[in-house]
Amino acid sequence: MTISASNDARGRRIRLGMVGGGKDAFIGAVHRIAARLDGEFDLVAGALSSTPEKARESGLALGLAEDRSYGSFEDMANREAAREDGIEAVSIVTPNHMHAPAARAFLQRGIHVICDKPLTATMEDAQGLADAVARSSALFILTHNYTGYPMVRQAREMVAAGDLGTVRVVQVEYPQDWLTEAAEADGTNKQAAWRTDPARSGAGGSVGDIGTHAHNLACFVSGLAVEALAADLQSFVPGRRVDDNAHVLLRFAGGARGMLWASQVAPGNENALRLRVFGDKGGLEWCQEDPNYLWFTPFGEPKRLLTRRGAGASAVANAASRTPGGHPEGYLEGFANIYADAAGAIRAARGGERHERLGLLPGIEAGLDGMRFIDACVRSSKADAAWVRL
Amino acid sequence: MTISASNDARGRRIRLGMVGGGKDAFIGAVHRIAARLDGEFDLVAGALSSTPEKARESGLALGLAEDRSYGSFEDMANREAAREDGIEAVSIVTPNHMHAPAARAFLQRGIHVICDKPLTATMEDAQGLADAVARSSALFILTHNYTGYPMVRQAREMVAAGDLGTVRVVQVEYPQDWLTEAAEADGTNKQAAWRTDPARSGAGGSVGDIGTHAHNLACFVSGLAVEALAADLQSFVPGRRVDDNAHVLLRFAGGARGMLWASQVAPGNENALRLRVFGDKGGLEWCQEDPNYLWFTPFGEPKRLLTRRGAGASAVANAASRTPGGHPEGYLEGFANIYADAAGAIRAARGGERHERLGLLPGIEAGLDGMRFIDACVRSSKADAAWVRL
Amino acid sequence: MTISASNDARGRRIRLGMVGGGKDAFIGAVHRIAARLDGEFDLVAGALSSTPEKARESGLALGLAEDRSYGSFEDMANREAAREDGIEAVSIVTPNHMHAPAARAFLQRGIHVICDKPLTATMEDAQGLADAVARSSALFILTHNYTGYPMVRQAREMVAAGDLGTVRVVQVEYPQDWLTEAAEADGTNKQAAWRTDPARSGAGGSVGDIGTHAHNLACFVSGLAVEALAADLQSFVPGRRVDDNAHVLLRFAGGARGMLWASQVAPGNENALRLRVFGDKGGLEWCQEDPNYLWFTPFGEPKRLLTRRGAGASAVANAASRTPGGHPEGYLEGFANIYADAAGAIRAARGGERHERLGLLPGIEAGLDGMRFIDACVRSSKADAAWVRL
Amino acid sequence: MTISASNDARGRRIRLGMVGGGKDAFIGAVHRIAARLDGEFDLVAGALSSTPEKARESGLALGLAEDRSYGSFEDMANREAAREDGIEAVSIVTPNHMHAPAARAFLQRGIHVICDKPLTATMEDAQGLADAVARSSALFILTHNYTGYPMVRQAREMVAAGDLGTVRVVQVEYPQDWLTEAAEADGTNKQAAWRTDPARSGAGGSVGDIGTHAHNLACFVSGLAVEALAADLQSFVPGRRVDDNAHVLLRFAGGARGMLWASQVAPGNENALRLRVFGDKGGLEWCQEDPNYLWFTPFGEPKRLLTRRGAGASAVANAASRTPGGHPEGYLEGFANIYADAAGAIRAARGGERHERLGLLPGIEAGLDGMRFIDACVRSSKADAAWVRL
Repeated sequence: MTISASNDARGRRIRLGMVGGGKDAFIGAVHRIAARLDGEFDLVAGALSSTPEKARESGLALGLAEDRSYGSFEDMANREAAREDGIEAVSIVTPNHMHAPAARAFLQRGIHVICDKPLTATMEDAQGLADAVARSSALFILTHNYTGYPMVRQAREMVAAGDLGTVRVVQVEYPQDWLTEAAEADGTNKQAAWRTDPARSGAGGSVGDIGTHAHNLACFVSGLAVEALAADLQSFVPGRRVDDNAHVLLRFAGGARGMLWASQVAPGNENALRLRVFGDKGGLEWCQEDPNYLWFTPFGEPKRLLTRRGAGASAVANAASRTPGGHPEGYLEGFANIYADAAGAIRAARGGERHERLGLLPGIEAGLDGMRFIDACVRSSKADAAWVRL
Repeated sequence: MTISASNDARGRRIRLGMVGGGKDAFIGAVHRIAARLDGEFDLVAGALSSTPEKARESGLALGLAEDRSYGSFEDMANREAAREDGIEAVSIVTPNHMHAPAARAFLQRGIHVICDKPLTATMEDAQGLADAVARSSALFILTHNYTGYPMVRQAREMVAAGDLGTVRVVQVEYPQDWLTEAAEADGTNKQAAWRTDPARSGAGGSVGDIGTHAHNLACFVSGLAVEALAADLQSFVPGRRVDDNAHVLLRFAGGARGMLWASQVAPGNENALRLRVFGDKGGLEWCQEDPNYLWFTPFGEPKRLLTRRGAGASAVANAASRTPGGHPEGYLEGFANIYADAAGAIRAARGGERHERLGLLPGIEAGLDGMRFIDACVRSSKADAAWVRL
Repeated sequence: MTISASNDARGRRIRLGMVGGGKDAFIGAVHRIAARLDGEFDLVAGALSSTPEKARESGLALGLAEDRSYGSFEDMANREAAREDGIEAVSIVTPNHMHAPAARAFLQRGIHVICDKPLTATMEDAQGLADAVARSSALFILTHNYTGYPMVRQAREMVAAGDLGTVRVVQVEYPQDWLTEAAEADGTNKQAAWRTDPARSGAGGSVGDIGTHAHNLACFVSGLAVEALAADLQSFVPGRRVDDNAHVLLRFAGGARGMLWASQVAPGNENALRLRVFGDKGGLEWCQEDPNYLWFTPFGEPKRLLTRRGAGASAVANAASRTPGGHPEGYLEGFANIYADAAGAIRAARGGERHERLGLLPGIEAGLDGMRFIDACVRSSKADAAWVRL
Repeated sequence: MTISASNDARGRRIRLGMVGGGKDAFIGAVHRIAARLDGEFDLVAGALSSTPEKARESGLALGLAEDRSYGSFEDMANREAAREDGIEAVSIVTPNHMHAPAARAFLQRGIHVICDKPLTATMEDAQGLADAVARSSALFILTHNYTGYPMVRQAREMVAAGDLGTVRVVQVEYPQDWLTEAAEADGTNKQAAWRTDPARSGAGGSVGDIGTHAHNLACFVSGLAVEALAADLQSFVPGRRVDDNAHVLLRFAGGARGMLWASQVAPGNENALRLRVFGDKGGLEWCQEDPNYLWFTPFGEPKRLLTRRGAGASAVANAASRTPGGHPEGYLEGFANIYADAAGAIRAARGGERHERLGLLPGIEAGLDGMRFIDACVRSSKADAAWVRL
């Protein structure tokens, strides 16, 4: 029952800035905990809100030095790039439509970017950002955090190793219930407000907010790309401007088929992301709400419960693990694994090297895939669920 | 902790015959146990096999009188109809293609028919059978046995009572794994052989064998009819002549949407029929492998575990229940509920009356719905998952 | 997916009588269904109630011939023994204090006895009954029905085969909640009334009613006998005359240790009998409310889910099984397995032979063990939980 | 879906030292993550190993300044107390026998102590430490970390509010399997070595290492003290010098009864701490391996699933929570809640105030209770499980 010493930072901590994540934000605080958990980063600068005054207040509340709490990301990018002790990386945790301009500002100054998903609000922005990444020497990391879970990484490894044989069927679903009613209607729920506003979230509602996670997870684990899809999107809540339920048929390269269901109107579901992959030799199942476990059934044999750091856990799962089996890790630890690997990649980049686990980190390609997925879903649904190739 | 006295037969037992269900059959033995469980029926005649010699052997093994073990259903229908003490009802448990001719033979002689699902192997046969039902004074009951589970009946009742509000989303799935490999290839597995033979099973493979159960369950509980569907059927196992995996998008009358997944190639799944229904006021979940429980979440409140004969169980569930809460009932008891209600309906018909629970019993309409579902799935899939109206 | 033909009776059905089990009874109806399920028995006679008039009414309701519905078990024993077509076996399903006199009446006339548990209400009666069994040519079978579950039988077999290594720890519990309040107080709940009345149930309350099941299950599966115990019994409900909660430390022959908890005042528990056995090579877990599954962990390997008729199921489990994996069997099927084996034993006895599965059937020895267990618990508790040897 | 801003530190971070927790340690790394997670502490000094050279190495690996990595805790206490910027608090994460001398060294210098459990290795040490706490102005906090779980705190609150009525039965168990074999035998497993060495762990093996957690949890949630116990301890593994399995009967003040089972030889159990509390109005259940959920059954109503930050979560649970419902938190977050509350208490103490949540923090009294529990178990077991009053 040892804990990996690698979970304590080595050498000088990485100086980190943040764009977004002020008061009333959700995901900003998650990023801060994830950055702090392994002691790899020091948050030293921020442009935490879109109004300068609020940005200052939030900065003070987080203990930032007064001169490093900025009123805009442009200001922050300029001034931090000019400092001897300026930030080496920035976390972008704004609503989707701000991802591209903010990320570009830092990338062009050689500052590494850790960006929340989905990549952007529009395909145009996505392409522009991809160009900026291509031109920059800095790393771009997208927090598809569910790929940080140890047993998700093990699942990917098992599929790649052929434990399931040829993959035939991929079932992925991501039901929630928090938008069952019109939570965005009165403006007090800021999360509901921007996530259902096409101008800020993009054309996809549930399909963008959580469908992209499901799509990413299915591809990450199966090792397969979606070639075509047929999507039936709905907005069940009267007045809602984006979809709140998405039913999608999937066809993968190589012949596997799948289904994806994303919903924010399914009472009794909190955050029930669940993936099942079936091949001609076996099947796998993983649930985000019970993430320390992976069910594996070799065809014709009893189902087996593989546990994080327990019997049946693989080296890749153990490397992403901090506590012994039976001592549950959760959402924040999975998120922190993205940050830990980002730290490794940034440290390697300091020395001009490439980090060994960089391949596990979602980047601009995963981001573009996600945008193509949203776009295809929206176009397919408008065409009455016609097949759309990605 | 009382057990309903109604589970012991009242009055004279109903004389029952059986067509099919000889050696190597699966579902015939299930029907016999279901018929026996509440003491309502006496099996007194049979045409148990398609070869006269085997039919005789099987009849003797089951203790039938020698002169009531017939070599063909035609012979049985003729002779039993002529007896003073002839059968009042017959169970038809053959492969699908025999359902129609056998059922018609008994219906036209006024003998009640209890028939396994799906209704027939072809739409033509289905229509012919429907005509025969319309012309007959006898009852026609289709054993969509999953509607016999107490908590399924309670679920239907709760939806009808508005406990979920307006239904928006229906997710139903029925994965199995027993056809992951080509079990039909060498001819020794008779179940696999006929269920993958279009001449005997009909055009649908998984979609007919288990997809119809899923479709029936979804409609039974939600109270909604499928208006249109888009189906992507696959035959993953090389050489297989029918689908072994079915992905279907559903559009229900009134605007609800759904997904149906049926698979016989999903390793780790034995018989995992599962239904989830979500409305604007709450959600329900039920799993066939854990059938004594029903999960109910009124939106915004904690999830509740409703248990058969336990707290939260309704009168309709209790009426279909034999043992106290915590004393699990299963597949056979659910099946027996169809037989118990059939017995009630047959007894009522003796007196020219209508049984109070007749509305819960699947009949010719459910059978036709199932056939239209199979037909629509096959046609949609051939048209690259185009929408087909039912 | 075949169903064993052995679940349909062979040859002439066994003529069965019943003592007890009239209106308001619980377990009588369970015995009748269990007797009927495999078609091995015909219920043809009964002394169903302690008042002659009610006995007649109950007999008619169950379709008994008028002259075989008796007002007392003595009368029934006398007259049935005198008939050419008299009963071959009798089920005794009265409150506990009537087991001994009724059983003796039939045993001394050579009629096989199938008796509900616990054996009797007192140790004296138990000894007397044991003497009667010893003197009789008839079989005596005690319905410790939980030993009829297929996966329980498999668990016993696995322990015996050494799959767990040397057994060290046995944890068994049986919580219920139906006596959380004084259900016996107003006399309307007949089950509560007699089960909390020492004159009818014996000195043990929860320890007799359900503790004996837990004790029997622990010994049946582990293959070990309890050598000594220390019991702390409580009557939490004011005015209750017997224990409603039992905490017991167990010491088994050979050095294994265990705990047994029985409770009828544990809100949230319906019938949650659960057994865990741990050895130096592995562990097993089984729960009555989810009886089709058996968890097995070889030490150092992933936990495995063994399923009835599924992967990992043994021959002994399959032989006690009627439906394929994933088609859940429950309480009634487990109970019916006792009756099916009783039928086999009775048929074998007709020919002067011994039934192969007789070793799995609980008999007088299991009954005496149960009585010694109750007696030891009561004596230990009175001595402030001192150790009492069995 | 907001995250509490309180999870980001306010004001100047607390300067923290650590005693123990060098290479090969388990719990030290856990304490460091817990201290870091909310950004409340800066680890600035350490005496991380019992050998000065290793202590230095471990200090460097953790990024401590060279002059603040000490060779002994005495040295560290002296020098840090003398520094202007010396540590304000120290975490003690050594084997048990070192807790008392280390804690006393800091307490007498006014430095707050956060100490791992159990309190000490002997009752004498425990009393001496209690005296030191009484004489010191500094806080003493014991990391009974399971009390940091949000749903455990909610459970405590619900019992206190009377949601269960009068508590009758408390069932607590803590099975593990990592000592099923003689893991301590060859000396390479340092955790196994010291935890089975009475000189370092104390007289209790499983009863001290995990039994104390179970005891603490049972008392914390039920609000009841154990008045007397009867314990049957075993050392199943040949050659083991301390117990590896503990069966304990509990009698609580006020009349409730309970059972406690701790085991390190139960294959299939990783860290399966589980608590059930039953009163005359309802029951509760919580499992450490699935910590975001709390089952609550009001007697006579359906069981309800209360979820962290979800429907049915209370203010006290939400205050100890960082992520929305369905985003699982685990062991580290629960542990971090102890540190977060410790930080609050230390900040309050800076200003001479008392922290509002101090009542939730285990301290010297909980530590003494745990020592009395171990001592009573050992004495009871030596007296053949005689009752011992605490």
